[in-house]
Amino acid sequence: MSDLRERLVAAVGAAHVLDGTDDAARDLAHDEALAVGHGTPAHVVRPGSTAEVAAIVTAARETHTPLVARGAGTGLSGGANAPDGAVVVAFDRMTAIRTIDTTDHVAVVEPGVSLEQLDAAAREHGLTYPVRPGEQSASLGGTVATNAGGMHAVRYGVTRTHVVGLEAVLADGSVVRTGGRLAKISAGYDVTQLLTGSEGTLALVTEVTVRLQPHLPVRRTVLAPFRDLATTTAAVARVVGSGLAPALCEYLDDPTMNAICTAADLTLGIPDDVRAAADAYLLVELVGRREDRVEEDLTELGTLLTQRGAVDVYALPDGSARRLVAAREQTFWTIKARGADEIVDVVVPRSALAEFLARARAAGERHGSRVLGCGHLGDGNAHLAVFQPDDEALHATLHEVLAAGTALGGAVSGEHGVGRAKAGALAELGDPGALAVMRRIRAALDPDGLLNPGAGPP
Amino acid sequence: MSDLRERLVAAVGAAHVLDGTDDAARDLAHDEALAVGHGTPAHVVRPGSTAEVAAIVTAARETHTPLVARGAGTGLSGGANAPDGAVVVAFDRMTAIRTIDTTDHVAVVEPGVSLEQLDAAAREHGLTYPVRPGEQSASLGGTVATNAGGMHAVRYGVTRTHVVGLEAVLADGSVVRTGGRLAKISAGYDVTQLLTGSEGTLALVTEVTVRLQPHLPVRRTVLAPFRDLATTTAAVARVVGSGLAPALCEYLDDPTMNAICTAADLTLGIPDDVRAAADAYLLVELVGRREDRVEEDLTELGTLLTQRGAVDVYALPDGSARRLVAAREQTFWTIKARGADEIVDVVVPRSALAEFLARARAAGERHGSRVLGCGHLGDGNAHLAVFQPDDEALHATLHEVLAAGTALGGAVSGEHGVGRAKAGALAELGDPGALAVMRRIRAALDPDGLLNPGAGPP
Repeated sequence: MSDLRERLVAAVGAAHVLDGTDDAARDLAHDEALAVGHGTPAHVVRPGSTAEVAAIVTAARETHTPLVARGAGTGLSGGANAPDGAVVVAFDRMTAIRTIDTTDHVAVVEPGVSLEQLDAAAREHGLTYPVRPGEQSASLGGTVATNAGGMHAVRYGVTRTHVVGLEAVLADGSVVRTGGRLAKISAGYDVTQLLTGSEGTLALVTEVTVRLQPHLPVRRTVLAPFRDLATTTAAVARVVGSGLAPALCEYLDDPTMNAICTAADLTLGIPDDVRAAADAYLLVELVGRREDRVEEDLTELGTLLTQRGAVDVYALPDGSARRLVAAREQTFWTIKARGADEIVDVVVPRSALAEFLARARAAGERHGSRVLGCGHLGDGNAHLAVFQPDDEALHATLHEVLAAGTALGGAVSGEHGVGRAKAGALAELGDPGALAVMRRIRAALDPDGLLNPGAGPP
Repeated sequence: MSDLRERLVAAVGAAHVLDGTDDAARDLAHDEALAVGHGTPAHVVRPGSTAEVAAIVTAARETHTPLVARGAGTGLSGGANAPDGAVVVAFDRMTAIRTIDTTDHVAVVEPGVSLEQLDAAAREHGLTYPVRPGEQSASLGGTVATNAGGMHAVRYGVTRTHVVGLEAVLADGSVVRTGGRLAKISAGYDVTQLLTGSEGTLALVTEVTVRLQPHLPVRRTVLAPFRDLATTTAAVARVVGSGLAPALCEYLDDPTMNAICTAADLTLGIPDDVRAAADAYLLVELVGRREDRVEEDLTELGTLLTQRGAVDVYALPDGSARRLVAAREQTFWTIKARGADEIVDVVVPRSALAEFLARARAAGERHGSRVLGCGHLGDGNAHLAVFQPDDEALHATLHEVLAAGTALGGAVSGEHGVGRAKAGALAELGDPGALAVMRRIRAALDPDGLLNPGAGPP
């Protein structure tokens, strides 16, 4: 180990090498995943440049030490949870916004930059980086690793839609540059897209180039209670198909709606009889360049939702809308505070979401677990909280829920990534052919198996 | 060879195995690339199902025979050009549209379906498949192989934006399923994205799942002459940044504008003094759900273009607009009829496009070649025609043009793919680290090197 420490100190300087048992290192050894453990890393290192990252990777390779990349630690799948003896590479010193380009509409940033920082910098030029996975302190590097999604994905797409170029350090210590400030490219395999979502198992990302979008200043929100989720889903298909291009399209079940309103001290003034009739709440936000058009569209949206079975439709005043959307973004923390034992991030075809939730609830009942939640209805992506203190019953519930999702044509993760939490489920439930391809790629790019072992695809 | 033939007949039936020297096979041994040759394949086979494709791949592997996949043959980089002795797998019998789903907004199709067929089927449900690479007879499989772009990419993105799931046969004959009818996924490496744009070098695609978009019925087009391309580019950055979300944003130089107007027998009525002052023509199309809004936006667009240096702005009547856009789509055929010796598909950062074109013209002048063209200005993607009958001077020109593009942060192909035409240029001008990754992936998935050898990444 002392040999490793010496090499790491040579790579980044003694001030940026923490021992894994240091108090300061403890918080850097895991992310926010609820139901997956972590070990004690040998060291946490904090590089300041691509060359330092390359030197760290070389040191790790020469000493056969596993490496775990870490952004802001806001992940929910344990992708940044360190095994015993690993080196955690924390990117919190690499926070430069190198370029906001107003002709190419791209930003070039170091991986430690947060979504909040990038979006603020883009806004100064009338642009925006629209990825909002619920936690704006998340880092660009981390969101690239997990291919983070979030509420705006229904309009703007997930992280991979926006990433057009990467610089990264491979397992052999070499530096690769992919893509560029380019709107399109068809020059060989898309290594940018391969690395995006690879959770630090193929390379450590040291620079990210993303596209920026025009900021649309007007936003209006409606809340529509529905009797059941199947009706809500059918209505949402019409909304998306109409061309109204909603910026978010969320559903919440009744307990989750109550929980986030209570947590945010928010009263929406929905009459008791409507609440009693409602099993699902739909939240839709429209955005645009002009007040008059968004207002008109809101009326059209309201009519459409009413025709498609909404019990009622409420156009929310700006303040309430902002607070409700913010409360929805903070659902994870609300649910965690209420003692949820794990959260689920299954994605299914939108048409299968109601059936998936019915099966998930039934699985919960079979094992005495409480299963509730919300999700990105426009994307068919459910975020369920599972309450089950017994470890065995919890895992039995989770297994059945994930299996129900894949049986309906879905996947074990829509946007949180596989990490360590779902690596086993992916290995069991994923397409065997696709898993074989992943395995061969991983072996080809990291033959010694040092990049985030235990996380990601098998 | 007879052993190979027997195996192929066993795989697909004698009626679907052509000898490479048959008249019917000749046309299937190459695509539309201008400056790259092809050989005589051993056979052209026409499978009718995934199982038959798998059987073909197994036969080829067991006899060490190279395989070349072929869609509609509309490619422009020789990606479907057969080497001597190869087996061409033609997908023209696999033309089923399996699903148009109006809740999930996806289509599931066999690879031989054309863009035109898919879009027509989607339109029946108020949806559209917006990829328009200039040739609507192109197949879904072919456009997935090359990651085709086209005029609408500035608004809707290139092919990979739309592809959410694939079924494909790997080099070992196994069948892999990736993605699904899913708006998002973060469950291991994105094999869907890896195969998209891989030009038949990693797998043969047997089924494609794509997202569909709402069809927007209103479209209006303006034509704006500019004095120079740098001014045009700056104006386009403002248009895209404004949030007007144009559906196309094309530039044409004066000779190309003349050529396509002559070919389409189209008179636009632009006064001589304006034509004399114009070095670049900008074509912008706005789309929307409502006539009144698109009309308003058109006025705003005109004002913006005038403020940003347009010599004049012409709102085109519907008929002229449709004919001009169609003529622009057919530019390749016009240029080919005029004797162009090769076309170039370089992509650069939008901000570098004017500088790239200046360097490309200078390279042409150095070698006595005529270089002219048009391109997707919104995407920084230039389509240049090079006229130079002397082979050596042609290749010297092409090399300098491609090198100028990569020196400016671009790539050798924006949307046509590398194929055989640009494989050497990619190997020379691409990022060495990225090329090493591609090489390792290719070796891992096709260890015998039988999938489209000589095409794609080295």
